Amino acid sequence: MAKFTRGMGRKAGLPPGSLLHIGDNRVEKVTISVMDYDASGVREENPKTVGELLRFKNTATVTWINIIGLHDIKIIERIGSCFDIHPLVLEDILDTNHRPKLEDYGHYLYIVLKSFVSQGGDNPEIEQISIIIGENYVITFQEQDEALFNTLRERIRSEKARIRTLGADYLAYALLDTVVDNYFDVLEALGETIEDLEDKLVIEPGRNAMQEIHNLKRRLLNFKKSLWPLREVMGTLGRGESPLVNKATLLYVRDVYDHTIRVIDTLETYRDILSGMLDMYLSGISIRMNQVMKVLTVISTVFIPLTFIVGVYGMNFKYMPELDWEWGYPAIWVVMLLISATMLALFRRRKWL
Amino acid sequence: MAKFTRGMGRKAGLPPGSLLHIGDNRVEKVTISVMDYDASGVREENPKTVGELLRFKNTATVTWINIIGLHDIKIIERIGSCFDIHPLVLEDILDTNHRPKLEDYGHYLYIVLKSFVSQGGDNPEIEQISIIIGENYVITFQEQDEALFNTLRERIRSEKARIRTLGADYLAYALLDTVVDNYFDVLEALGETIEDLEDKLVIEPGRNAMQEIHNLKRRLLNFKKSLWPLREVMGTLGRGESPLVNKATLLYVRDVYDHTIRVIDTLETYRDILSGMLDMYLSGISIRMNQVMKVLTVISTVFIPLTFIVGVYGMNFKYMPELDWEWGYPAIWVVMLLISATMLALFRRRKWL
Amino acid sequence: MAKFTRGMGRKAGLPPGSLLHIGDNRVEKVTISVMDYDASGVREENPKTVGELLRFKNTATVTWINIIGLHDIKIIERIGSCFDIHPLVLEDILDTNHRPKLEDYGHYLYIVLKSFVSQGGDNPEIEQISIIIGENYVITFQEQDEALFNTLRERIRSEKARIRTLGADYLAYALLDTVVDNYFDVLEALGETIEDLEDKLVIEPGRNAMQEIHNLKRRLLNFKKSLWPLREVMGTLGRGESPLVNKATLLYVRDVYDHTIRVIDTLETYRDILSGMLDMYLSGISIRMNQVMKVLTVISTVFIPLTFIVGVYGMNFKYMPELDWEWGYPAIWVVMLLISATMLALFRRRKWL
Amino acid sequence: MAKFTRGMGRKAGLPPGSLLHIGDNRVEKVTISVMDYDASGVREENPKTVGELLRFKNTATVTWINIIGLHDIKIIERIGSCFDIHPLVLEDILDTNHRPKLEDYGHYLYIVLKSFVSQGGDNPEIEQISIIIGENYVITFQEQDEALFNTLRERIRSEKARIRTLGADYLAYALLDTVVDNYFDVLEALGETIEDLEDKLVIEPGRNAMQEIHNLKRRLLNFKKSLWPLREVMGTLGRGESPLVNKATLLYVRDVYDHTIRVIDTLETYRDILSGMLDMYLSGISIRMNQVMKVLTVISTVFIPLTFIVGVYGMNFKYMPELDWEWGYPAIWVVMLLISATMLALFRRRKWL
Amino acid sequence: MAKFTRGMGRKAGLPPGSLLHIGDNRVEKVTISVMDYDASGVREENPKTVGELLRFKNTATVTWINIIGLHDIKIIERIGSCFDIHPLVLEDILDTNHRPKLEDYGHYLYIVLKSFVSQGGDNPEIEQISIIIGENYVITFQEQDEALFNTLRERIRSEKARIRTLGADYLAYALLDTVVDNYFDVLEALGETIEDLEDKLVIEPGRNAMQEIHNLKRRLLNFKKSLWPLREVMGTLGRGESPLVNKATLLYVRDVYDHTIRVIDTLETYRDILSGMLDMYLSGISIRMNQVMKVLTVISTVFIPLTFIVGVYGMNFKYMPELDWEWGYPAIWVVMLLISATMLALFRRRKWL
Repeated sequence: MAKFTRGMGRKAGLPPGSLLHIGDNRVEKVTISVMDYDASGVREENPKTVGELLRFKNTATVTWINIIGLHDIKIIERIGSCFDIHPLVLEDILDTNHRPKLEDYGHYLYIVLKSFVSQGGDNPEIEQISIIIGENYVITFQEQDEALFNTLRERIRSEKARIRTLGADYLAYALLDTVVDNYFDVLEALGETIEDLEDKLVIEPGRNAMQEIHNLKRRLLNFKKSLWPLREVMGTLGRGESPLVNKATLLYVRDVYDHTIRVIDTLETYRDILSGMLDMYLSGISIRMNQVMKVLTVISTVFIPLTFIVGVYGMNFKYMPELDWEWGYPAIWVVMLLISATMLALFRRRKWL
Repeated sequence: MAKFTRGMGRKAGLPPGSLLHIGDNRVEKVTISVMDYDASGVREENPKTVGELLRFKNTATVTWINIIGLHDIKIIERIGSCFDIHPLVLEDILDTNHRPKLEDYGHYLYIVLKSFVSQGGDNPEIEQISIIIGENYVITFQEQDEALFNTLRERIRSEKARIRTLGADYLAYALLDTVVDNYFDVLEALGETIEDLEDKLVIEPGRNAMQEIHNLKRRLLNFKKSLWPLREVMGTLGRGESPLVNKATLLYVRDVYDHTIRVIDTLETYRDILSGMLDMYLSGISIRMNQVMKVLTVISTVFIPLTFIVGVYGMNFKYMPELDWEWGYPAIWVVMLLISATMLALFRRRKWL
Repeated sequence: MAKFTRGMGRKAGLPPGSLLHIGDNRVEKVTISVMDYDASGVREENPKTVGELLRFKNTATVTWINIIGLHDIKIIERIGSCFDIHPLVLEDILDTNHRPKLEDYGHYLYIVLKSFVSQGGDNPEIEQISIIIGENYVITFQEQDEALFNTLRERIRSEKARIRTLGADYLAYALLDTVVDNYFDVLEALGETIEDLEDKLVIEPGRNAMQEIHNLKRRLLNFKKSLWPLREVMGTLGRGESPLVNKATLLYVRDVYDHTIRVIDTLETYRDILSGMLDMYLSGISIRMNQVMKVLTVISTVFIPLTFIVGVYGMNFKYMPELDWEWGYPAIWVVMLLISATMLALFRRRKWL
Repeated sequence: MAKFTRGMGRKAGLPPGSLLHIGDNRVEKVTISVMDYDASGVREENPKTVGELLRFKNTATVTWINIIGLHDIKIIERIGSCFDIHPLVLEDILDTNHRPKLEDYGHYLYIVLKSFVSQGGDNPEIEQISIIIGENYVITFQEQDEALFNTLRERIRSEKARIRTLGADYLAYALLDTVVDNYFDVLEALGETIEDLEDKLVIEPGRNAMQEIHNLKRRLLNFKKSLWPLREVMGTLGRGESPLVNKATLLYVRDVYDHTIRVIDTLETYRDILSGMLDMYLSGISIRMNQVMKVLTVISTVFIPLTFIVGVYGMNFKYMPELDWEWGYPAIWVVMLLISATMLALFRRRKWL
Repeated sequence: MAKFTRGMGRKAGLPPGSLLHIGDNRVEKVTISVMDYDASGVREENPKTVGELLRFKNTATVTWINIIGLHDIKIIERIGSCFDIHPLVLEDILDTNHRPKLEDYGHYLYIVLKSFVSQGGDNPEIEQISIIIGENYVITFQEQDEALFNTLRERIRSEKARIRTLGADYLAYALLDTVVDNYFDVLEALGETIEDLEDKLVIEPGRNAMQEIHNLKRRLLNFKKSLWPLREVMGTLGRGESPLVNKATLLYVRDVYDHTIRVIDTLETYRDILSGMLDMYLSGISIRMNQVMKVLTVISTVFIPLTFIVGVYGMNFKYMPELDWEWGYPAIWVVMLLISATMLALFRRRKWL
């Protein structure tokens, strides 16, 4: 939970645009990789210095620069001056606690969004991805090297890929599409976890079921926080106000927008389902509990008058005629059986058993 | 539940417009049927190949092409190239997890909506229907062959049907109207189920009533997810921004819009009713439970002092004067009767019984 | 409840404008009555055939045609063709499950709204009233003959009534005003029922109080469903977009709009009050219940150690010195009194009693 | 509660503008008082007849006419014809159940709002104040003679008051400001009541605390109903669409708007606080209750096995070897002490005590 | 709580612009400090009289005037007349209960916002900061002398600070940025408190946990009240409608807007987390409670039949054959062991233990 705020206050009082990496160092060394392509071919490079990137800046080809690792502030700074990026954007790239947003700086668009990296375990890590969309280049900033964009890279490499004939805006769309499609995987895993939990609740509701429901709720809360603002980002992008995005690409962007809404819808549905499950679990527990108490209380209630009766004939009064009767003892048994039978019948008739 | 997401993530990384059927194969073979009509007559065909459809494309008559079954991607693809449909639309037609939406592609409109197919049982299956509205043709895509549009077909076949004198937009309206009118049937069935459950709750509230209420709530959630976005679809269509829909038809579209709002209103009312039922059921259970416990506890409470008294006279002290009194035993009975009568009177006066 | 949907699905597949009466036949015979007036006089008629209405169509006088009973579809149909009313409007007039709405058909306005007819009993019946406002005529459709508009009729009949000098739009306003003012009566009765229930809850909260609160909530739900859309109807009418409504009349329409908002406000307040009552009732029940259980448990708890003690001296060990003491018996009474007094004091100090 | 509706339905069927006083007669006689001022001086009068007011109508001075008491319909009627006020406005002035609203009739503005008159006791009475703002006059209608505007009157009387140099719109502002500032007093008193109740809840939570919380909630509901629409009234007024309000005065009106929002904010905060208090109170009650039951049950549970044991040695079997042992009796005591000590230790280790 | 309202009503009836300090005197003496800078240098002064400020009014340099302490009304008044500030603004500066707002007075902007001053303890004090932004000066009003702006002062003093080359609007931005960044510190501390509480709840849920959760909720409520309106303030400022804010500065203002939204988002998340914690805590308490009661009741229920049996053989009937059997006593033990074993097995099989 503290990760929502930790590191937030570290910068108070510093001038704006002061670069400071807020987040964990997830990789050891910052890696820069470049894909430069047009319909005729693809060039891939891993430049050692930021200076080498300058070559790609004013070419007719589409250039995708991918930076993995954010802790080396100098590299980010140099890329910023290289591509004329506003210091506030650099600051935002380094601050990994940002909510998704879109900012239009005229000659480039800046988009922040979140990706969920499954670590093998159940609870995916939230990673921040920054995308800068220029005239003929796209720069992406990631916290770690993961396989998310590998399929896209393969697609670009393949000979007749349509993407090779289209501009930087289409590349940006392809990146956004990949990230949003990845949400569906995460949601599917989450949906299965919820389904399993529901099945488990029916079979054997235990104390820790509640803990699990609450954990899932918390996780949904995190997802929602990461996804909700994306709706607006995609909506704004799809309205096509920036000349950097072609009319033809807008159709695709709106498709991503649709997917984003579906993701958010599904999250809402999950939340409703979890609330319903919690209600049902709690009321189920309480109803079952009450039933147990009722049965136990009925048992006590049947025996208490009987215990009284045998107490009566355990008294030591000198003159107790019943004690001397020959059939007194069996008679008292009969009386007690009658009493308990009557009580049980009454309880049963009133549906107390 | 998992059906909200299952298959969602299958496409991550693929280029957009990659055709992939997401959904169940509900029919064995894809069927194409064509109704081509104008005021003078109706021609019906079941072409074997997509190529035969080309003939209907540029005629003055209205053509309704109905495709049942979505798993044969090649057929969908060929229809797409035949009628110049955008790959993203084809992709959406094949993905049966879509929320209702309306997209305007200039020379055609694309509408997705849901139909509820009652399978004889209680819980209707949700089917996706895609409608493409062109200048003089309407193409509908369904997952299975059901009777939904049969009455409409009969209407077209009848000699003097008004529909025969009107364009493709009116046919599209008739299709939408049929689907929305069908919702009322489903809602009516649902309303009866809710009413039955309510009656049952009054007569004999059982443990599984809660399960049933929750099932109904879940079903309403599913319906709402399928219907809520339809409101916007119909609203947009009714605003008449597309030249494909005539002014005269708009009046009818707005009527469907009205019906859609009524359906959603009714869903909301059902939800409120179910919430009220659940509250009443739970508080009813708890109140009845408490009543039972109270009565049982009162019985115990009355007998406990009596048991104490008979215990006293069961003690073996040498010097216990009462034990030797001639009337000791009856006296103690009298005392005990008085005590229990007093207690019961007290309890009754305080409304504990 | 089922009345929300019953009959809804009956029309699926029929062409639009198929006239079908959906609702109960509340009167035996359809009655048509006509009031035709201007400043100089009032003519009243009860024409037997729809044809007789034609005379009133193109006069300078204001004509109010009131139709009671909807089950004779032919009459409705003839009126429709007589006054050139769109088939969809006729369909809506016959479907008594409509939500309030306003539709502008150019040469006439169509308004649907609900009226609550008190049947002597507590729960008023909901009746649908359709109003068609033309240039110089107003047609009203009601399901049954009730006294609602009688005062208005008297007003028209009176010699110097201002209404006689004004047009059809003012007549329509007067009709709407009468219906909305009638809501206040219904609300006042409802308010009194709520107040009575509240008083009853304070004096003697019974099991069926919950049932009554839920019934009232359900009734409010029905009212809300009938009234909420009216707000928009009145708002649209008051904006004065139709040339059929004069500027001077708009002030009056806005007054009705104000009243409608007050009615809805009051409904909301009632709902809040009922929720508060239910909460208070339930927590009151539970607190009182707990109090009872506490007292009963305290009684048991005081007696259980005493019963143990008398049990001890009921044992048959050969060597129990206390049994032979002369003052053993009184001593044990003293001990027991001390124990119970201590316990009661402790319980009282901890506020358990 | 019933005061929300009582009298509402009294007018159904009457023509609009039929004057009818709806509310209580809070004063015996209607009083008219006039303050007529400009920078040079103040004239105060108490005219006996409405006719005398005509003199003030077309003067250059600002005239404030204050009417106290609404039950004399004739007076209201004459004022209406005197100042050319629409009959619907007169009707609204007389109906004291109105929600705050602003209506622009061109040559005058009509504002209704509520004032809270503290009657010494805790629960202030809600009074309706109607304000008519003309070119150079302001007419206020109150239900009773209270001190609310006295400070304002003093301000006008004082020699160099800035208000004397300004127009009728500033006077209207001063009136609104006085009413809204008065809300803060009422809220402050309410805040103190809530604080006291909270303190009381901590010290000794009693049964009637719930009743008090509910009363406060109901009161907040009443306030909210009276204040919420005022926000829109002030907002509309502050937008400066009426030529009757000068640009310079708008700044002041917006200040009142700010205050209104603060009042509503505070009301919302109070509601949240009350909800929190109720939750805490109810869960506190339930937790404490449970604790008591647990302790009592532990006591019973410790004694029940002991009672069983002494029961065993109270049996009358001929052959019970223990009974004849010399140390049997002390041994049984040791056994019982051990058992109870073990149980208590166990309970304590599991935190049941 | 009462601090929301205390002092609110003190001014009712006074003319607007009547200066009155509403708040606590947090410092003894009002301090005025001036920073006057441009790219070439910084001059700092602590003028004793307001008159000395006049020198800075019409210079080309940027002047930051900081007033600490609000209780000396005369000083505020003189500053007001010095810089031509509207009396309503002065009134608002002195009233420390204001909600954040932005007002555009043409030649200056007036902004009110809240700062949270940590007093070493857990619960930060809320302080009101008023900022007046003129052409070339910024005036800030604080209630006490705290370190909040010290880093900013150092930044201005440093030789090559970018801020020295920019105008008053950038200084205003820097002030707002400092305040909003400070919120993150406060939120981080709050987040840690919540996290600690959550950990504590898991280990040992005590009665006062509920009190702590409620205190945190109340604190969040206070924060929300102080922060929510800031969103609109920043949004309005960022829209750049005032000529006092340069285009270049707008980018920075929007960055602060972003931060404000993140602060509010985090607050919302905290509220959801707290609600979840409270729910989990309460249901956890209730479930654990029930478990205890169940175990205790099971113990009683096992012993009650046994006590009955030993009671039977404690009866003093003359003819009780069992009592004379040689193995009667061991036999009864066997019977009792069997009964209790059976009961325990049953209870265990039904998961009651």
